[in-house]
Amino acid sequence: MARRRLSLSLRWGDMDAYRHINNVEIVRLLEEARVRAFGLESPDGSAPMLATGMVVAKHTVEYLRPLDYRLAPVAVDLWVGRTGGASFEVDYELLEPDTDAVGELRTYVRASTVCVAYDFDEGRPRRLDDDERRRLALLADD
Amino acid sequence: MARRRLSLSLRWGDMDAYRHINNVEIVRLLEEARVRAFGLESPDGSAPMLATGMVVAKHTVEYLRPLDYRLAPVAVDLWVGRTGGASFEVDYELLEPDTDAVGELRTYVRASTVCVAYDFDEGRPRRLDDDERRRLALLADD
Amino acid sequence: MARRRLSLSLRWGDMDAYRHINNVEIVRLLEEARVRAFGLESPDGSAPMLATGMVVAKHTVEYLRPLDYRLAPVAVDLWVGRTGGASFEVDYELLEPDTDAVGELRTYVRASTVCVAYDFDEGRPRRLDDDERRRLALLADD
Amino acid sequence: MARRRLSLSLRWGDMDAYRHINNVEIVRLLEEARVRAFGLESPDGSAPMLATGMVVAKHTVEYLRPLDYRLAPVAVDLWVGRTGGASFEVDYELLEPDTDAVGELRTYVRASTVCVAYDFDEGRPRRLDDDERRRLALLADD
Repeated sequence: MARRRLSLSLRWGDMDAYRHINNVEIVRLLEEARVRAFGLESPDGSAPMLATGMVVAKHTVEYLRPLDYRLAPVAVDLWVGRTGGASFEVDYELLEPDTDAVGELRTYVRASTVCVAYDFDEGRPRRLDDDERRRLALLADD
Repeated sequence: MARRRLSLSLRWGDMDAYRHINNVEIVRLLEEARVRAFGLESPDGSAPMLATGMVVAKHTVEYLRPLDYRLAPVAVDLWVGRTGGASFEVDYELLEPDTDAVGELRTYVRASTVCVAYDFDEGRPRRLDDDERRRLALLADD
Repeated sequence: MARRRLSLSLRWGDMDAYRHINNVEIVRLLEEARVRAFGLESPDGSAPMLATGMVVAKHTVEYLRPLDYRLAPVAVDLWVGRTGGASFEVDYELLEPDTDAVGELRTYVRASTVCVAYDFDEGRPRRLDDDERRRLALLADD
Repeated sequence: MARRRLSLSLRWGDMDAYRHINNVEIVRLLEEARVRAFGLESPDGSAPMLATGMVVAKHTVEYLRPLDYRLAPVAVDLWVGRTGGASFEVDYELLEPDTDAVGELRTYVRASTVCVAYDFDEGRPRRLDDDERRRLALLADD
């Protein structure tokens, strides 16, 4: 398994009137994790994994326990599931970065997104090329 | 089938850098449809369907075609799927309010949400009472 | 005075943890009013007032009383203040659409925005042309 | 002068259809800076500066140059201006954390907010107490 862990900050404004992080803003955090993992140049200067962008075809998001605002970042673990000709599945867990008193990682959200490689200049989906498949494979769950 | 149709306005700020309505903002629109259907007093002055609020346990959202910003509202059709002891499923379609030239309704998004009746004063889920079940049944899909 | 009145819907998600419409989301509502008044084709099919878009140079926003979420839309009155070579000021009041029991309009927010006509293809501000000045003048405060 | 510097991450979703960080989302970032400076317990465990919360009475925000999304955080410098009986002014600059090639700090936004200490249990503004005044004074501009 080759998970990538991202560290993301919450914002006070992510809370809703129930004083928890709003379920919609959690989908926003998953977007940010996805963009940081796939859509942009890497910190080491390498090319973005998906040069022409991607669109979302489907989200499945399970909310396991309420997440409250705090100053410290949360962790999003992210890996690649099934990969097709023009699409791939991103799986995530939003969780505490550190284990709790009984040695477990507290998980708030489990989710997956079907992403489609998209050429925005052409206005249509496009096949993943070999370089992209190789890079996605590096994040594939075993 | 007893669908309820809601008319919701888009905001220019719902667009993202790809110049379509962002997939996360569509989950926001579904929230708004849900709140208007279940969480608040009806325009006729009747009590809210769920007096103590609800939390989201799961979203499944399929994006069928891109939605662009425009002045005219979109329609969200909403109905109730399976209902359990403390939870119920809300199903939606986000679609054009009017049929197109060939007489079809253009659908942008199909989605469902598992909602849990929640007592925020007590800080825990609670069973749906008979009055709530009766009102949810009025929106049940046949 | 030539105010234009827009009717805008609130969203439940505009509330923050204090259970009022969040001050940032009010700036979002002002954006929506601005886009509807200036940035898009009119409902009568006429060209958009500003064909190439606008950027915000400055906001001043005064919050006069808390605004709570409700199903009914709020009103935003909007008019044009001082107009310069490449910029113009938009003034707004966010208020109840109807007078209250003592015959007054309840005002929630007073604001103004300095907008700059911007050519996004060229990546720079541009002068307002005569047609735009004429159309802005129609909304000018006397 | 006693500025406090905060480091804040952008989100891809903060961009609008013009592909810059949206002016409204910049007001969201200022809120986050304000909450982190005043509203919450300090990382060292000390009490929050404002135990009962604050409301915004006025924003003034000047946008000096476009800010683009990137992975690296931006800096928000924040300090306290005029302090009254129940209110205080927060001043900010949103800027690059590092000097550029010619040795200058690039500033994107200058802003100030009039905050009112507010007791949400009582539903009304309240006077700042001596402890709060002392702590605000530590951030006062000379």
